Amino acid sequence: MSNSENIVWHNHHVSKNERASIKFQKPCILWFTGLSGSGKSTIANAVESKLLELKKHTYLLDGDNVRMGLNRGLSFSDKDRVENIRRIGEVSKLFVDSGTIVLSAFISPFIIDRKQVRELVESEEFIEVFIDTPLEVCEGRDPKGLYKKARNGEIANFTGISSPYEAPLNAEIHIANNGISIEDAAQKVINYLNKRGYIDAK
Amino acid sequence: MSNSENIVWHNHHVSKNERASIKFQKPCILWFTGLSGSGKSTIANAVESKLLELKKHTYLLDGDNVRMGLNRGLSFSDKDRVENIRRIGEVSKLFVDSGTIVLSAFISPFIIDRKQVRELVESEEFIEVFIDTPLEVCEGRDPKGLYKKARNGEIANFTGISSPYEAPLNAEIHIANNGISIEDAAQKVINYLNKRGYIDAK
Repeated sequence: MSNSENIVWHNHHVSKNERASIKFQKPCILWFTGLSGSGKSTIANAVESKLLELKKHTYLLDGDNVRMGLNRGLSFSDKDRVENIRRIGEVSKLFVDSGTIVLSAFISPFIIDRKQVRELVESEEFIEVFIDTPLEVCEGRDPKGLYKKARNGEIANFTGISSPYEAPLNAEIHIANNGISIEDAAQKVINYLNKRGYIDAK
Repeated sequence: MSNSENIVWHNHHVSKNERASIKFQKPCILWFTGLSGSGKSTIANAVESKLLELKKHTYLLDGDNVRMGLNRGLSFSDKDRVENIRRIGEVSKLFVDSGTIVLSAFISPFIIDRKQVRELVESEEFIEVFIDTPLEVCEGRDPKGLYKKARNGEIANFTGISSPYEAPLNAEIHIANNGISIEDAAQKVINYLNKRGYIDAK
């Protein structure tokens, strides 16, 4: 046993920079925020597709892969909504640490919650993408029939109807989503990343 | 507004296969389990370094990046320990979905908890790595002085002392860590991944 006791247990920790170096990109969080039906998820998906074409390493967090997994058991109470966004922020941070460009698409209606996620990472690693679609447009689309239910009182605390949406004041990327095509909206995000050296898309 | 209402909101979801395809690897979870001081974290770090040299895309989850972040607020009660491992499992699954080889280094003493993580992913995506270091060796090392505290009753529910460790019965990789060098232990994991096509390390 003396053998193993004498082993020097030196930890070489692989760093964020080393992980990112084999990905040829600068990791960051693209934090999409906006009303239900605003197009967050659709645009985030389009951005991810474009990044994949550019051989960039990405991951998209949205209701589909978070609500039934990591955040299973959380309700829509104020306290649980805060915890919901907190965990998504922490997971996003882990992905950034892995060198990945992570896209996060959640309503995330409160300024303070988004601020807390922003503060988890380096300042250039958090990019807020405000999908600024008017409530009337979102409600007109109502892809999941949620606005109708909220108006009928079947859903409580529904953002925009019975719970506030606090719009970002200084989002890094502002997409006025009123007639803009998905393609153009996604390209706007790509241009931002390219211009600031997160990706190299010649 | 009619313009935006007519947009076809078609979601192209980038798939796990597409994300993995630009990484040239088969994503999986390397789930290291073993007593405190067994060498889990050290060996996992050595494996990650070797994978980086091979230009493989990895992420390592351990106490350093999980306890103070995602799992902040969880205690060491039985209930919270289950939730601790559950969340780590869910996050590991997200990393696998991103195409990453994720290394997870936690004591994870209970068979049922490890089984639940295993069941979150496809059968070939979960690789249990049992760092089988005798309690006496771990206690002899006691790098953080935790065994001493546990023996003195200063730490309750300490695995191996006052709480059981349920050893894996059929771990995919079994490392009898009694005199083996870190290098050899790490290489054993690499060989497993190489042989089964997770990586291509010619």
